[in-house]
Amino acid sequence: MICLDKSDFQALSKVPRLNLINSCMGYKSANLIGTVSKEGIYNLAVFSSVTHLGSDPALIGFILRPTTVPRHTYSNIKESDYFSVNAISESFINKAHQTSANYAPEVNEFEVTEIDMEIKTDCLVPFVKSSPVQLLCKYVNEYLIEENGTIHIIASIEKIYVENELLSDDYWIRLDQGKIVAINGLDGYAKTELIERFPYARVIQKPEI
Amino acid sequence: MICLDKSDFQALSKVPRLNLINSCMGYKSANLIGTVSKEGIYNLAVFSSVTHLGSDPALIGFILRPTTVPRHTYSNIKESDYFSVNAISESFINKAHQTSANYAPEVNEFEVTEIDMEIKTDCLVPFVKSSPVQLLCKYVNEYLIEENGTIHIIASIEKIYVENELLSDDYWIRLDQGKIVAINGLDGYAKTELIERFPYARVIQKPEI
Repeated sequence: MICLDKSDFQALSKVPRLNLINSCMGYKSANLIGTVSKEGIYNLAVFSSVTHLGSDPALIGFILRPTTVPRHTYSNIKESDYFSVNAISESFINKAHQTSANYAPEVNEFEVTEIDMEIKTDCLVPFVKSSPVQLLCKYVNEYLIEENGTIHIIASIEKIYVENELLSDDYWIRLDQGKIVAINGLDGYAKTELIERFPYARVIQKPEI
Repeated sequence: MICLDKSDFQALSKVPRLNLINSCMGYKSANLIGTVSKEGIYNLAVFSSVTHLGSDPALIGFILRPTTVPRHTYSNIKESDYFSVNAISESFINKAHQTSANYAPEVNEFEVTEIDMEIKTDCLVPFVKSSPVQLLCKYVNEYLIEENGTIHIIASIEKIYVENELLSDDYWIRLDQGKIVAINGLDGYAKTELIERFPYARVIQKPEI
């Protein structure tokens, strides 16, 4: 086993350090966040930090680096409050990854990456048509992470769109059925296959003698 | 496609709501967090919320529900500052999931779940011996998420232990090589297989005419 300590990874140049630190805590969720500006320009950006925060109320969180690429996502969310979270499937990982390029604010990433956009009837937020799980979310709050200047966005889940065959009887969404991928580091996309679902873990009581 | 709105998932009973809201944002990282109390009692608990926060300085975050099961993790981290984050591999998903049972504070989850513990020479923090990627982390700060009372713990990565064959030349850790799993919802464990690593995405310039 190799051991790298703080001084080792601080001594690395930027790209290897990004690779190492982005891949060391395991798989990340793979989503495209869709937004619209007040001028009506659509934006789409890949995010690997969308995380469950709570079920009642239904809340998610994700991390934004305001000084890097997905800053249009941030300004759009602040302007319109609503945004979409769209699961990335195997069939469009190439296009999804391309949204991470540093496009100008006036560029519609749906167009340049040729990802099909869908507007649901009741709101202006753009969704990814071929995504098997799509969330309509609403901005709730944000926390500045003072340690590095990132922003932890808190949002409520307003609607969940899910392909019929992914939703099980107990409302668990089977992600591999939709060929939903997981992200490894900054640039690796992995396919997945369910091994097992476990029952609720209980303390195993030893029989009394 | 099925559409569920806020009123639908608020009307669900607890378990289906937990299933739905925990699985709708995609795969989560699968880690065991190891801690030790000031009395020297070891604790191990499964977490699916460990997320990358930044690479320079190397920071991770994770979400704690102080009123539910992993509360010993929180009190131990507050007492000793240091903890370990250990990637979960296919070979021990059953044991890893069992750590989520509501054991009493005096119970050592390594013992009851028969997960082999390893103490590295320079600190008291317990690690999971068979884990292919192990992090030594140090508590830095916490943010109370006022919307639901959860706590976002911020920690620095002090050391990374990684099996030789997982570490590529550019310091990217190839997670599927270590049979590291991803979590689907509360109780589903998925195996993974790398599809592709993409180069850094650049804006595609159209040729000038």
